[in-house]
Amino acid sequence: MIESIVSTGDAVLDKNSLPPRQSIGWFDGKVRFIDQRRLPHEWQVVETDNWETIERAIKTLAVRGAPLIGVSAAYGVAATSVKFKNETNYKQKISGVIDSLLKARPTAVNLVWALTRMRKIVENETGDEALNLNLIREAIDIHEDDKQRCAALADYGQEIVQDKSGIITICNTGFLATGGAGTAAAIFYEAHDSGKDLQVYACETRPLLQGARLTVWEMTNAGVPVTLLVDSASASLAASGKADLCIIGADRIAANGDSANKIGSYTLALVCSAHKIPFYVAAPFSTIDIDCPDGNKIPVEQRDGLEVTHIEGVEIAAKNAKIFNPAFDVVPADLITGIITEKGIFFPPYRFKD
Amino acid sequence: MIESIVSTGDAVLDKNSLPPRQSIGWFDGKVRFIDQRRLPHEWQVVETDNWETIERAIKTLAVRGAPLIGVSAAYGVAATSVKFKNETNYKQKISGVIDSLLKARPTAVNLVWALTRMRKIVENETGDEALNLNLIREAIDIHEDDKQRCAALADYGQEIVQDKSGIITICNTGFLATGGAGTAAAIFYEAHDSGKDLQVYACETRPLLQGARLTVWEMTNAGVPVTLLVDSASASLAASGKADLCIIGADRIAANGDSANKIGSYTLALVCSAHKIPFYVAAPFSTIDIDCPDGNKIPVEQRDGLEVTHIEGVEIAAKNAKIFNPAFDVVPADLITGIITEKGIFFPPYRFKD
Repeated sequence: MIESIVSTGDAVLDKNSLPPRQSIGWFDGKVRFIDQRRLPHEWQVVETDNWETIERAIKTLAVRGAPLIGVSAAYGVAATSVKFKNETNYKQKISGVIDSLLKARPTAVNLVWALTRMRKIVENETGDEALNLNLIREAIDIHEDDKQRCAALADYGQEIVQDKSGIITICNTGFLATGGAGTAAAIFYEAHDSGKDLQVYACETRPLLQGARLTVWEMTNAGVPVTLLVDSASASLAASGKADLCIIGADRIAANGDSANKIGSYTLALVCSAHKIPFYVAAPFSTIDIDCPDGNKIPVEQRDGLEVTHIEGVEIAAKNAKIFNPAFDVVPADLITGIITEKGIFFPPYRFKD
Repeated sequence: MIESIVSTGDAVLDKNSLPPRQSIGWFDGKVRFIDQRRLPHEWQVVETDNWETIERAIKTLAVRGAPLIGVSAAYGVAATSVKFKNETNYKQKISGVIDSLLKARPTAVNLVWALTRMRKIVENETGDEALNLNLIREAIDIHEDDKQRCAALADYGQEIVQDKSGIITICNTGFLATGGAGTAAAIFYEAHDSGKDLQVYACETRPLLQGARLTVWEMTNAGVPVTLLVDSASASLAASGKADLCIIGADRIAANGDSANKIGSYTLALVCSAHKIPFYVAAPFSTIDIDCPDGNKIPVEQRDGLEVTHIEGVEIAAKNAKIFNPAFDVVPADLITGIITEKGIFFPPYRFKD
């Protein structure tokens, strides 16, 4: 059973209430977003002007993906502003909401970044009416910036995608993870739209199955040919010669190019290296953490063992084992062919500058 | 829902009706075996003298693992003999049962091998009473041979297992896969029993989760410390330094040492190679197919996509993707440190002789 996250006054709409390949939007003072927990079985769009709904959505992973979390939080502040603008202590209320949303996922860099932009607007001395308009404008700007970054990244990515390509990927990097069309998957969309013949090989991405649930869903909805495999079949796929390119996303990229991403990314990189399959990372430039010298400095979060022992509430493992469940792994820079961002493709040795 | 496989006259017994670390046995004219489909949730032992029950058990994977399938079929013939020995056409009936059991899993080499031994007994010209005794004796012999092979293999394996080892493995290679204590897992049992401090790292083994369901169950029941991980976390585990050895089983080993085993084995071998973790294959000598020159000659079976898209009846993937679901992959000999058999450990370049 998936618990409802809606508050009083929220609406649950159908899939046509958002434009194609968009998982969030601003409609007349309210936010609409896809409740991703229900995918691929149900395609529900929640419409809300309650920041508590946005907070619950972020906490429960109804919205996920670093860029999308930032956009959601910004819209949550904007919606709160519309709702509270004629009340007393309007400005304090907005500040309180920003404080609360900041805690929804403490380690999410994009959440902090987006809410810091919103807080700066609040701190500007303007009248309430102007403040409200500026908050809405800023949230829409944050969203539009993200859309444009996705589009620019997808454009640069076309350089490396040949016609008749088999492309391996892991996790979800499409419009469900960003405010725009995605990162790695945005490259697939654009290649497909421009007439290239692709076959996307989606690793299922245990434990939470974002590949099987979300990437397959995105690709089949868009008509992009997609083949699903269990993560451990990647070497067999590589040996078969069906795949000639790999593009994945990233959660954090160190200054030397070491890239942290969903667990399994490093395993996949070793497979691609052994089979000389070019291995690219696609991420917004903001994912690069210049202050982090290399992958050893990226802390690896161990997640709840229940993610491994249970799937959709069904117990699938014997009891009483310890569980090794790191949220992500680090792909060493020397296994990465290039890093695709909205500012262009970077090649080793990596020298990132803004 | 797991369908019952028992026939009229069969009994369902509790876990104490078989000796520890034994998944099959012969008790006073009847076969007892663990219904592995119910593990790890239920530990049921079926007692039967109906060959149809054995046939269903093999077909439905209630018994699985190449050596165990052979032992089960032999006992199925012996039980049939006990049941039919005073009937007319006794010998023809036994022959018919052998013909039927041969078709239960057409590609299982051990099934053919065990039933060929049983057929030779039938073909010897003896009286019915002697034939019956000889069939029982032959089935028990087949089982005892397998037990001794497991024990000898486990002894040889001790050479490579140091005290305080972290050992990665995939799939199930214990007493649930053989007539004895197992292949790779028999090495873990013996190392643990002799006082070595081990940590077994069990890859869950998607799609059918034999690692999570069966290996974790075997190890925890035996008090062997075990840690479960999703298959794609193997590179992260290797990078952590927690594992210093890998031992897996094999379905078929080519003359040059290329080894076919459960999907994910090749991926794991690439991970171990990158991290200089010794990678061993443990299998009965009969797994070596001298007539097969190398891994390219081993046909790879593609299995039903439902194994990937569903777990215990729950749909876990989006619809309409193609599925890439090879049953196994082939580990090239150059990634294998050594092959452990009941005749000793073989090292490259591999020259197998009987």
